[in-house]
Amino acid sequence: MSDGKYGAFLTFEGIDGSGKSTQARRLADALRQSGHDVLLTREPGGSPGAEEIRSLLLHGEPDRWSAETELLMFTAARRDHVERTIQPALEAGKVVICDRFVDSTRVYQGITRGDLRAKVDTLHALMIGLEADLSFLIDINPNIALARATRRIGAEARFESFGIELQATLRAGFLNLANRSRRFRVIAGNRSEDEVHADVARIAETWLGPNG
Amino acid sequence: MSDGKYGAFLTFEGIDGSGKSTQARRLADALRQSGHDVLLTREPGGSPGAEEIRSLLLHGEPDRWSAETELLMFTAARRDHVERTIQPALEAGKVVICDRFVDSTRVYQGITRGDLRAKVDTLHALMIGLEADLSFLIDINPNIALARATRRIGAEARFESFGIELQATLRAGFLNLANRSRRFRVIAGNRSEDEVHADVARIAETWLGPNG
Repeated sequence: MSDGKYGAFLTFEGIDGSGKSTQARRLADALRQSGHDVLLTREPGGSPGAEEIRSLLLHGEPDRWSAETELLMFTAARRDHVERTIQPALEAGKVVICDRFVDSTRVYQGITRGDLRAKVDTLHALMIGLEADLSFLIDINPNIALARATRRIGAEARFESFGIELQATLRAGFLNLANRSRRFRVIAGNRSEDEVHADVARIAETWLGPNG
Repeated sequence: MSDGKYGAFLTFEGIDGSGKSTQARRLADALRQSGHDVLLTREPGGSPGAEEIRSLLLHGEPDRWSAETELLMFTAARRDHVERTIQPALEAGKVVICDRFVDSTRVYQGITRGDLRAKVDTLHALMIGLEADLSFLIDINPNIALARATRRIGAEARFESFGIELQATLRAGFLNLANRSRRFRVIAGNRSEDEVHADVARIAETWLGPNG
């Protein structure tokens, strides 16, 4: 893809424990195998400036920032990530795969901490603009997701510490988003990693078309 | 002012070296002398969360953040400052004096780093809302201001390192803002500290009315 063609922006979304990070990595590997130039990145973070903001958000007292302040910091981090990492890769014709993007903000900040959904959308349109071309929602039963997520709670427990009821709300939030946008593909995540990957890879390869 | 009366929000604006920080402090002292309950604060910073963001902005490579990312971080810091420091003080009936507020963002981010003025206003209306009740613009000849500012360049040189031409642009930006809003009082700053203070104190005392 060195003929000046603009790249493609693919995102993975879903609740914690859905397996989306694993699937993002496996899709990146598969697309590289078939000759695509791939950049794998993630949010929050994904550029040095965004990582600094991420670390400010993750360390210290949880909930010391209000939902609105946190939303502004996530948007600042995203702006940096888009400017320094995603946009240059797209302009170089790469396939950019991002583990979480603004849909996560729409669901997490838009639903769980007061009803900020309209603010999230306005702020994104004003300061970021970029939307994914194709988004995979790895949809999973919250009980299974919670069991998976709990196994790897660590320093970043803050983002993983939601209970089962909230997980169900978040799942519904993601499904609601997916139902309203043609860029989403909802993938049943309660299956083996290999089965999920086979679906994701087939859809992505078909969508991207022949390489070169 | 303990009768449940809402407080008053006073701001000081102007280019670096205009003497506004000194004047803010002197007005706080004078109003306390006449029995007002005063909170003196400043931006960027003014609350623990905002100070953390301020320190992220001040340290490290200058210009490593784009104008838009910086604007989002300033707005996040301001949101925290308003929520945790300014709003509670106003609700407690205090006179809040703030050294720089959104007008500085309107001028610095709105003029000096690309034309972000419309974005600054939209973002402020969306995420902050609060405007000062009374704003003092300490207006000064940039040559005098620059000489004053240069004397105290230190760790925070980044915010003080503008040259004379940019200072003139900033001055014009502040005057332009002041001319379009009734809450501004333009104070001639090329005079002695005492003379400037006398004007500011008289205006503020008159505006606030008798205390208690």
